[in-house]
Amino acid sequence: MQIREVVRKLQPYVWEPSNEQIALSVGLKPGEIVRFDTNVSPNPPSSLLIKLASQLNEMRVNEYPDTSYTKLRRAISNYAEVTMDQIVVTCGADEALDMAAKTFIDHGSFAVTSSPTYALFKIVTELMGGNVKPVPRLEDFEDDVEGLLKAASTESRVIFLCSPNNPTGNISRRETVVSLLSEAGCAVVVDEAYYEFSGRTVVDLTKKYDNLVVVRTFSKAFSLAGARVGYMISSPETAGMLNKVRPPNSVSVISLLLSEAALNDLELMRRNVELIVRERDRCIKFLEECSGVKVYPSHANFVLLRFEKGGAERVYSRLLKKGLVVRCLSGTPGLEGCLRFNVNLPEKNDLLLEALATECG
Amino acid sequence: MQIREVVRKLQPYVWEPSNEQIALSVGLKPGEIVRFDTNVSPNPPSSLLIKLASQLNEMRVNEYPDTSYTKLRRAISNYAEVTMDQIVVTCGADEALDMAAKTFIDHGSFAVTSSPTYALFKIVTELMGGNVKPVPRLEDFEDDVEGLLKAASTESRVIFLCSPNNPTGNISRRETVVSLLSEAGCAVVVDEAYYEFSGRTVVDLTKKYDNLVVVRTFSKAFSLAGARVGYMISSPETAGMLNKVRPPNSVSVISLLLSEAALNDLELMRRNVELIVRERDRCIKFLEECSGVKVYPSHANFVLLRFEKGGAERVYSRLLKKGLVVRCLSGTPGLEGCLRFNVNLPEKNDLLLEALATECG
Repeated sequence: MQIREVVRKLQPYVWEPSNEQIALSVGLKPGEIVRFDTNVSPNPPSSLLIKLASQLNEMRVNEYPDTSYTKLRRAISNYAEVTMDQIVVTCGADEALDMAAKTFIDHGSFAVTSSPTYALFKIVTELMGGNVKPVPRLEDFEDDVEGLLKAASTESRVIFLCSPNNPTGNISRRETVVSLLSEAGCAVVVDEAYYEFSGRTVVDLTKKYDNLVVVRTFSKAFSLAGARVGYMISSPETAGMLNKVRPPNSVSVISLLLSEAALNDLELMRRNVELIVRERDRCIKFLEECSGVKVYPSHANFVLLRFEKGGAERVYSRLLKKGLVVRCLSGTPGLEGCLRFNVNLPEKNDLLLEALATECG
Repeated sequence: MQIREVVRKLQPYVWEPSNEQIALSVGLKPGEIVRFDTNVSPNPPSSLLIKLASQLNEMRVNEYPDTSYTKLRRAISNYAEVTMDQIVVTCGADEALDMAAKTFIDHGSFAVTSSPTYALFKIVTELMGGNVKPVPRLEDFEDDVEGLLKAASTESRVIFLCSPNNPTGNISRRETVVSLLSEAGCAVVVDEAYYEFSGRTVVDLTKKYDNLVVVRTFSKAFSLAGARVGYMISSPETAGMLNKVRPPNSVSVISLLLSEAALNDLELMRRNVELIVRERDRCIKFLEECSGVKVYPSHANFVLLRFEKGGAERVYSRLLKKGLVVRCLSGTPGLEGCLRFNVNLPEKNDLLLEALATECG
């Protein structure tokens, strides 16, 4: 039996461990673990779940979803101010990225990333037999437009951007995206998973540029990471191509109902975003007063810190022993000494800030 | 912008239209449409939905699922009598097939199918840059073992079998699967989506053969097509390879709960299977009395018919005008004159049988 060389070589994903696994590893109870590492919203959307409970009675869960996802696309169309034929619904943003790779990446071709960025861009590219050209970001993680254009000029099929960028928190400038769209000659995928926390989008550019694909998700601002719903927005023609590689049924009928309900109660999402942005800015302000740590500005629901004298791994471990789980990124090129944490509820943020202040002495 | 040649050429999937679309096309109301074309179970599992409703209150739908799906794998492990490290959970059986292609199919390599069979085998293969060698089935749709072995002998990475086979209803013989596993030198994927209706499985062979991958689903016998949960069973080593191409979170937290609950109430599934098998055999017996139509035996929840003097398209259209939706397969090589219908509730089957009897008149 022959397994693909690229799969043999692939490192298994570094899964996020469960609370139970973490608790076991540091001798705490699962209930004592507080997660700051998964970039999700801190509370479930209770009113949507209550509404769902009342609908389960009549749910035809024995039948496949409507494969054209008409109702959800109609709701997204209103929300994102695009036409329904511009929208492709996916199983979370991750499936959208996989489908983008399936559409653009041929064996032996390249994808370009503005590095460091979301790790999945590389994985989906390599699975299609392609390779990634990472273009290092400039100071303060700005995109290197010239570098990206140069990398895109040979055998490259797609540029993957993430805006706001995970894990650095900054956005890609609009003029950067426009330059790439008009000059790079390949597709530009902009992952806007954290869009709602920044309010900045390039979705409107899909009306002008056929080579733009914007990726969105219900996992972050809408507090529905567990439901696995995302979507892509592009020109209708490009959406037609993306649709050809779309699996007919990857979103459950229940997740469809939840995401439709979420779009029918935008106030709920907006209150959540307000809370998180307020807390994020409070955390940033607090940490800016600490010594030895650089705090990067953030347009997302997470914050990147750099321990200027190193020791990020040690800080990570000491936080972990207290049950506070952040993401250690110190091993990623360009992120030496860095930790990332997502914003949580005020009382939990207090725990983290206090522990971080102790570390900074 | 360059789109992959294989995607440009790909026909978009022929989606199953919604009840609304069908009703509109034939001038009926959506409530007058009865589906016999999607091979699902006729009733939702009410007791599971009631249980779910009571759990929604505490559901952390804002968080990602446990990426190792530990609880569901434990339940599957008991049900399928394999160890937990043999199981890979997927977003329906369709994602399992996509992952099999990602694991085995390199650009320019081949997959072998026993044709006619499930259409997705070809699609997932072509998306990975491979091609399918369809080996025509013998009389009564038996697998052509020698033909399959011959096709597998050059550049082939995987043989896709479906047992019971959609749309022909027969199973692959155990000795066929053993021959292929021991002689073909490539992976053998056996799609057992309809396993529970036949009771015949090759899962136990995963203990002996590293190159066997069995695909299962909750969409059919468990009446959970709308939840999108499937799984693969293989040796632990092969499962480790499949896991490398697995997206970290493609099954929603709610679908996980539903499928776990389904495995904790096997009686519910078994009563459903009993009803369907009884009705299937009643339908077959009735149709065998009709003239001009050949009825194939079935190990699944659907039945294949061949109109011996042709005219299947005409029958299909006339049924459709009455709101009875079956699948017309007459355009598929080897299935000239064929229709397929899935077994429904007794009173709905009566409607179909009566209409078919009129056609055979």
